[in-house]
Amino acid sequence: MPATPFAQTPAPPYYAVIFSSRLAPEAGEAYGETAKRLLALAATMDGFLGVETTGRDPDGFGITISYWRDLEAIARWRAEGVHVAAQNAGRQSWYEAFWLRVARVERETVFFRDAALD
Amino acid sequence: MPATPFAQTPAPPYYAVIFSSRLAPEAGEAYGETAKRLLALAATMDGFLGVETTGRDPDGFGITISYWRDLEAIARWRAEGVHVAAQNAGRQSWYEAFWLRVARVERETVFFRDAALD
Repeated sequence: MPATPFAQTPAPPYYAVIFSSRLAPEAGEAYGETAKRLLALAATMDGFLGVETTGRDPDGFGITISYWRDLEAIARWRAEGVHVAAQNAGRQSWYEAFWLRVARVERETVFFRDAALD
Repeated sequence: MPATPFAQTPAPPYYAVIFSSRLAPEAGEAYGETAKRLLALAATMDGFLGVETTGRDPDGFGITISYWRDLEAIARWRAEGVHVAAQNAGRQSWYEAFWLRVARVERETVFFRDAALD
Protein backbone atom coordinates (compact mmCIF):
# COMPACT_ATOMS: atom_id res chain seq x y z
CA MET A 1 0.00 0.00 0.00
CA PRO A 2 1.31 3.45 -0.89
CA ALA A 3 2.40 5.90 1.80
CA THR A 4 0.42 8.61 0.02
CA PRO A 5 -3.19 8.44 -1.14
CA PHE A 6 -2.17 10.07 -4.43
CA ALA A 7 -1.48 7.90 -7.47
CA GLN A 8 2.08 8.68 -8.56
CA THR A 9 1.27 8.78 -12.25
CA PRO A 10 3.77 9.69 -14.96
CA ALA A 11 3.42 12.71 -17.22
CA PRO A 12 0.26 12.70 -19.39
CA PRO A 13 -1.15 11.38 -21.58
CA TYR A 14 -2.49 8.30 -19.82
CA TYR A 15 -5.96 7.02 -18.97
CA ALA A 16 -8.26 7.23 -15.95
CA VAL A 17 -11.10 4.83 -15.19
CA ILE A 18 -13.48 6.81 -12.98
CA PHE A 19 -15.72 4.39 -11.13
CA SER A 20 -18.49 6.07 -9.13
CA SER A 21 -20.80 3.64 -7.37
CA ARG A 22 -23.45 3.24 -4.74
CA LEU A 23 -23.32 -0.01 -2.81
CA ALA A 24 -26.43 -1.91 -1.86
CA PRO A 25 -26.86 -1.99 1.94
CA GLU A 26 -26.55 -5.79 1.88
CA ALA A 27 -23.21 -5.86 0.02
CA GLY A 28 -21.28 -6.16 3.26
CA GLU A 29 -18.18 -8.20 3.99
CA ALA A 30 -17.87 -10.18 0.78
CA TYR A 31 -17.76 -6.95 -1.17
CA GLY A 32 -15.10 -5.40 1.03
CA GLU A 33 -12.78 -8.37 0.76
CA THR A 34 -13.24 -8.64 -3.00
CA ALA A 35 -12.57 -4.93 -3.46
CA LYS A 36 -9.31 -5.27 -1.53
CA ARG A 37 -8.24 -8.34 -3.54
CA LEU A 38 -9.07 -6.59 -6.80
CA LEU A 39 -6.97 -3.56 -5.97
CA ALA A 40 -4.01 -5.81 -5.21
CA LEU A 41 -4.60 -7.76 -8.42
CA ALA A 42 -4.92 -4.63 -10.57
CA ALA A 43 -1.56 -3.44 -9.26
CA THR A 44 0.08 -6.52 -10.83
CA MET A 45 -1.32 -5.81 -14.31
CA ASP A 46 0.91 -4.50 -17.08
CA GLY A 47 0.09 -0.84 -17.70
CA PHE A 48 -1.38 -0.16 -14.24
CA LEU A 49 -0.24 3.28 -13.02
CA GLY A 50 -2.01 3.71 -9.69
CA VAL A 51 -5.32 4.12 -7.92
CA GLU A 52 -7.05 6.75 -5.80
CA THR A 53 -10.07 6.08 -3.64
CA THR A 54 -11.86 7.31 -0.55
CA GLY A 55 -14.10 5.74 2.05
CA ARG A 56 -17.80 5.54 1.22
CA ASP A 57 -20.38 8.06 2.28
CA PRO A 58 -23.12 6.91 4.70
CA ASP A 59 -25.44 6.38 1.70
CA GLY A 60 -22.93 3.93 0.16
CA PHE A 61 -21.61 6.29 -2.52
CA GLY A 62 -17.90 6.08 -3.31
CA ILE A 63 -15.39 6.98 -6.00
CA THR A 64 -12.42 4.89 -7.13
CA ILE A 65 -10.15 6.06 -9.93
CA SER A 66 -7.60 3.72 -11.46
CA TYR A 67 -4.95 4.99 -13.86
CA TRP A 68 -3.62 3.08 -16.87
CA ARG A 69 -0.99 3.51 -19.55
CA ASP A 70 -3.34 2.94 -22.47
CA LEU A 71 -6.68 1.54 -23.60
CA GLU A 72 -5.12 -1.88 -24.24
CA ALA A 73 -4.16 -2.20 -20.56
CA ILE A 74 -7.72 -1.23 -19.55
CA ALA A 75 -9.15 -3.84 -21.93
CA ARG A 76 -6.94 -6.55 -20.43
CA TRP A 77 -7.99 -5.60 -16.90
CA ARG A 78 -11.63 -5.57 -17.93
CA ALA A 79 -11.26 -9.15 -19.27
CA GLU A 80 -9.22 -10.52 -16.35
CA GLY A 81 -10.98 -13.61 -14.90
CA VAL A 82 -11.23 -12.69 -11.22
CA HIS A 83 -12.26 -9.19 -12.23
CA VAL A 84 -14.97 -10.50 -14.58
CA ALA A 85 -16.41 -12.61 -11.77
CA ALA A 86 -16.44 -9.55 -9.51
CA GLN A 87 -18.12 -7.45 -12.21
CA ASN A 88 -20.90 -10.04 -12.42
CA ALA A 89 -21.34 -10.16 -8.65
CA GLY A 90 -21.36 -6.37 -8.63
CA ARG A 91 -24.20 -6.13 -11.10
CA GLN A 92 -26.14 -8.98 -9.52
CA SER A 93 -25.94 -8.02 -5.88
CA TRP A 94 -23.42 -5.43 -4.72
CA TYR A 95 -24.21 -2.24 -6.58
CA GLU A 96 -27.41 -0.26 -6.59
CA ALA A 97 -25.85 1.82 -9.32
CA PHE A 98 -22.54 2.69 -10.89
CA TRP A 99 -21.23 5.07 -13.52
CA LEU A 100 -17.92 4.06 -15.08
CA ARG A 101 -16.09 6.56 -17.28
CA VAL A 102 -12.95 5.97 -19.31
CA ALA A 103 -11.08 9.23 -19.80
CA ARG A 104 -7.81 10.31 -21.36
CA VAL A 105 -5.79 12.49 -18.99
CA GLU A 106 -4.36 15.32 -21.05
CA ARG A 107 -3.05 17.82 -18.51
CA GLU A 108 -2.34 17.97 -14.80
CA THR A 109 -1.28 20.29 -12.01
CA VAL A 110 0.46 18.86 -8.98
CA PHE A 111 0.95 20.68 -5.68
CA PHE A 112 2.74 19.39 -2.60
CA ARG A 113 3.23 21.89 0.18
CA ASP A 114 6.66 20.64 1.20
CA ALA A 115 7.87 21.06 -2.36
CA ALA A 116 6.12 24.38 -2.93
CA LEU A 117 8.11 27.58 -3.38
CA ASP A 118 5.40 29.92 -2.16
CA MET B 1 -28.65 19.72 -4.77
CA PRO B 2 -29.19 16.58 -6.84
CA ALA B 3 -31.26 13.69 -5.53
CA THR B 4 -28.54 11.32 -6.71
CA PRO B 5 -24.80 11.56 -6.04
CA PHE B 6 -24.14 10.71 -9.69
CA ALA B 7 -23.49 13.47 -12.18
CA GLN B 8 -26.12 13.13 -14.91
CA THR B 9 -23.73 13.76 -17.75
CA PRO B 10 -24.68 13.57 -21.43
CA ALA B 11 -23.18 11.07 -23.86
CA PRO B 12 -19.39 11.38 -24.30
CA PRO B 13 -17.22 13.06 -25.28
CA TYR B 14 -16.99 15.63 -22.50
CA TYR B 15 -14.34 16.53 -19.92
CA ALA B 16 -13.65 15.58 -16.32
CA VAL B 17 -11.59 17.62 -13.87
CA ILE B 18 -10.37 15.10 -11.29
CA PHE B 19 -9.35 16.97 -8.16
CA SER B 20 -7.70 14.76 -5.52
CA SER B 21 -6.57 16.64 -2.45
CA ARG B 22 -5.43 16.37 1.12
CA LEU B 23 -6.59 19.13 3.42
CA ALA B 24 -4.33 20.62 6.05
CA PRO B 25 -5.69 19.87 9.55
CA GLU B 26 -6.12 23.62 10.16
CA ALA B 27 -8.24 24.22 7.04
CA GLY B 28 -11.47 23.97 9.04
CA GLU B 29 -14.66 25.94 8.68
CA ALA B 30 -13.57 28.57 6.18
CA TYR B 31 -12.62 25.85 3.75
CA GLY B 32 -15.90 23.97 4.12
CA GLU B 33 -17.98 27.07 3.47
CA THR B 34 -15.91 28.11 0.49
CA ALA B 35 -16.10 24.61 -1.00
CA LYS B 36 -19.89 24.69 -0.74
CA ARG B 37 -20.08 28.17 -2.31
CA LEU B 38 -17.77 27.12 -5.12
CA LEU B 39 -19.86 24.08 -6.00
CA ALA B 40 -22.96 26.26 -6.20
CA LEU B 41 -21.09 28.82 -8.30
CA ALA B 42 -19.65 26.19 -10.66
CA ALA B 43 -23.17 24.94 -11.30
CA THR B 44 -24.08 28.34 -12.75
CA MET B 45 -21.24 28.31 -15.30
CA ASP B 46 -21.89 27.73 -18.97
CA GLY B 47 -20.70 24.25 -19.91
CA PHE B 48 -20.92 22.78 -16.40
CA LEU B 49 -22.31 19.23 -16.57
CA GLY B 50 -22.23 18.02 -12.98
CA VAL B 51 -20.05 17.08 -10.03
CA GLU B 52 -19.34 13.98 -7.97
CA THR B 53 -17.66 14.02 -4.58
CA THR B 54 -17.41 12.07 -1.36
CA GLY B 55 -16.67 12.95 2.24
CA ARG B 56 -13.01 13.15 3.24
CA ASP B 57 -11.07 10.33 4.80
CA PRO B 58 -9.80 10.80 8.38
CA ASP B 59 -6.41 11.83 6.94
CA GLY B 60 -8.06 14.66 4.99
CA PHE B 61 -7.90 13.01 1.56
CA GLY B 62 -10.86 13.54 -0.76
CA ILE B 63 -11.83 13.36 -4.42
CA THR B 64 -14.07 15.80 -6.30
CA ILE B 65 -14.75 15.37 -10.00
CA SER B 66 -16.45 18.08 -11.99
CA TYR B 67 -17.64 17.50 -15.53
CA TRP B 68 -17.57 20.05 -18.33
CA ARG B 69 -18.68 20.33 -21.93
CA ASP B 70 -15.30 21.38 -23.30
CA LEU B 71 -11.89 22.83 -22.48
CA GLU B 72 -13.16 26.37 -23.01
CA ALA B 73 -15.69 25.94 -20.19
CA ILE B 74 -12.93 24.61 -17.92
CA ALA B 75 -10.72 27.59 -18.79
CA ARG B 76 -13.51 30.03 -17.93
CA TRP B 77 -14.11 28.31 -14.58
CA ARG B 78 -10.41 28.33 -13.82
CA ALA B 79 -10.32 32.11 -14.40
CA GLU B 80 -13.54 32.95 -12.50
CA GLY B 81 -12.79 35.55 -9.81
CA VAL B 82 -14.17 33.88 -6.70
CA HIS B 83 -12.62 30.62 -7.84
CA VAL B 84 -9.22 32.24 -8.38
CA ALA B 85 -9.32 33.64 -4.83
CA ALA B 86 -10.14 30.18 -3.52
CA GLN B 87 -7.33 28.62 -5.53
CA ASN B 88 -4.89 31.05 -3.91
CA ALA B 89 -6.21 30.36 -0.41
CA GLY B 90 -6.01 26.64 -1.19
CA ARG B 91 -2.34 26.79 -2.08
CA GLN B 92 -1.50 29.15 0.77
CA SER B 93 -3.27 27.45 3.62
CA TRP B 94 -5.90 24.81 2.95
CA TYR B 95 -4.20 22.03 1.02
CA GLU B 96 -1.25 19.96 2.06
CA ALA B 97 -1.28 18.58 -1.45
CA PHE B 98 -3.46 18.22 -4.50
CA TRP B 99 -3.32 16.53 -7.87
CA LEU B 100 -5.60 18.01 -10.52
CA ARG B 101 -6.10 16.11 -13.77
CA VAL B 102 -8.02 17.27 -16.84
CA ALA B 103 -9.28 14.28 -18.80
CA ARG B 104 -11.43 13.74 -21.86
CA VAL B 105 -14.20 11.22 -21.18
CA GLU B 106 -14.39 8.95 -24.20
CA ARG B 107 -16.57 6.06 -23.11
CA GLU B 108 -18.89 5.15 -20.25
CA THR B 109 -20.97 2.35 -18.81
CA VAL B 110 -23.97 3.21 -16.67
CA PHE B 111 -25.81 0.75 -14.43
CA PHE B 112 -28.87 1.47 -12.32
CA ARG B 113 -30.46 -1.54 -10.66
CA ASP B 114 -34.04 -0.31 -11.07
CA ALA B 115 -33.49 0.11 -14.78
CA ALA B 116 -31.55 -3.13 -15.21
CA LEU B 117 -32.98 -6.00 -17.22
CA ASP B 118 -31.17 -8.76 -15.33
